[in-house]
Amino acid sequence: MTKEEYSKIESYMLLHSSKDSAHDAQHTYRVLNYALMIASFEKTVDKDILIAACLLHDVGRKEEFENPNLCHAVIGSEKAKTYLKSLGWAEAKYKHVGACVLAHRFRSNNPPRTIEAKILFDADKLDVVGPVGIARTLCYQGNKNYPLYHKDCNGKVLDGATSEESSFFKEFKFKLEGLYEKFYTKQATQIAQQYREIAITFYNHMLQQVTENSDKGQALLEDLLK
Amino acid sequence: MTKEEYSKIESYMLLHSSKDSAHDAQHTYRVLNYALMIASFEKTVDKDILIAACLLHDVGRKEEFENPNLCHAVIGSEKAKTYLKSLGWAEAKYKHVGACVLAHRFRSNNPPRTIEAKILFDADKLDVVGPVGIARTLCYQGNKNYPLYHKDCNGKVLDGATSEESSFFKEFKFKLEGLYEKFYTKQATQIAQQYREIAITFYNHMLQQVTENSDKGQALLEDLLK
Repeated sequence: MTKEEYSKIESYMLLHSSKDSAHDAQHTYRVLNYALMIASFEKTVDKDILIAACLLHDVGRKEEFENPNLCHAVIGSEKAKTYLKSLGWAEAKYKHVGACVLAHRFRSNNPPRTIEAKILFDADKLDVVGPVGIARTLCYQGNKNYPLYHKDCNGKVLDGATSEESSFFKEFKFKLEGLYEKFYTKQATQIAQQYREIAITFYNHMLQQVTENSDKGQALLEDLLK
Repeated sequence: MTKEEYSKIESYMLLHSSKDSAHDAQHTYRVLNYALMIASFEKTVDKDILIAACLLHDVGRKEEFENPNLCHAVIGSEKAKTYLKSLGWAEAKYKHVGACVLAHRFRSNNPPRTIEAKILFDADKLDVVGPVGIARTLCYQGNKNYPLYHKDCNGKVLDGATSEESSFFKEFKFKLEGLYEKFYTKQATQIAQQYREIAITFYNHMLQQVTENSDKGQALLEDLLK
C-alpha cells in the first residue's frame, strides 16, 4: 500500500470513528498494530487487505452506539466496501475487506475464514486483554452508567459469576476472563498470555477491596444502629 | 442513630443519588464503610453526624453532572441541611452535617475542620485509591468520552504527566498518583497504603502495553508503506 492510499483510508476512518473512549481512533490504531505484529509471523498475508480491514473495522460503530439494534460489523462492512470501491479497488479486494469487517465481531454468526479475517478478529480481541481491556471495559460500562458490581439481599458483594444484570464484575466473569483461549492465531495467543495475569490480578484485588470495605463497614454499622 | 432514622436518610440518599457508575449509591455505601472504619480508631466522633454526612455527601451530584458549573458540595450541603431539619434535627446538628458535606470536596476552598468533616473527606478520598479508584476514574472518563491517553506529534504514547487535554493517563498522573499523602487521619493513610502499589502497577502495566503496541506496530507499518 502506498503512503498516500493509507492516508486516505486513515482519514475516512478518523471521520467515521466513534468518540467513545473504548472504540475511538486509538483503538483502531492498536488493532492495526496488533494485526501487523501477528501478520509478521504468518505466511501469505495480503497486507493491503489487512491494513484496510483494520482501519475500517469499526466505521459502523457510531451507528450501533446511537441505535443498539444495529450491528456495527454489518454496517461497517457495507461502508468499507462502498468506500474502497470509490477509491478504485478491484471487486475481489474490496469484497474481501468487507468480509473481514463482517467477521470481526465477537458475538457473531459469521466466523472469520481467511487468514486476514482471522488476524483482524484476533487483533481486535487482543485489545480486550490485560490492563487495556480492563480500562476499555470500564470506560464502556461507565458510558452506559452500569454499576461496578451488585450485592445480594444480605449485602454481600457478588463476584459477577452468577449475575444477570450488567456490571463490570459480570463483564469480567462472562467475557474478559475467558478470552485467552479464543484466538485463531498462535501469535495472538502468545501476546494475550503476557497480559492475562495482570487483568486477573486487578479483578481479584478490586473484588477484595470492595468485599473488605463492605464486610467491615456493615459489621460496624450493625453495632452502631439501635 | 436508630435503624428507623438510618433507613429514612438512606431512602433520601437513594432517591437523590446520581446514576453514574463512579458516584452511584454503592460509592456512598463504600464512603460510609470507610468512615466507620476510620472512626473506630478516633476518639469523640459524633457517629450520628458522621453517618448522616456520609449518606448525604453526594446528594448534589446529579445537579453537577447535569450542569458542570454547579458545585455538588454546595448544593448537597444545602439539601442535607433542609432534609435533616425536616426530620426534626437540632440546628447545631444539621448545620454540622451541612459543613461536613460542604468540605468533602477535593478541590475546594472549604477545608474540613471538625473530626467528622475530616473523616468524611478521607473516606471519600479512600474510594479513589487502589483498583476501585482506577475503576471509578475510568468509568467517569468513559462517561465523558475522554480518551485513555494521547500521543505526541511523532506518534509516541504520552504518559500523562505533561498532558493538557483530559485523558485517563493525565488523571492518574495529576490526581490518583499523589492522593496517598493527602489524608487527614492516620487510619485513612494506612488503609490507602494497602492499595497504593496495586494502582501504580496497573498504570505502569497499561502504559507498557500501549507503548509496546504502538512502537512495534508503527515500525512494522513504516516498513510496509511505499
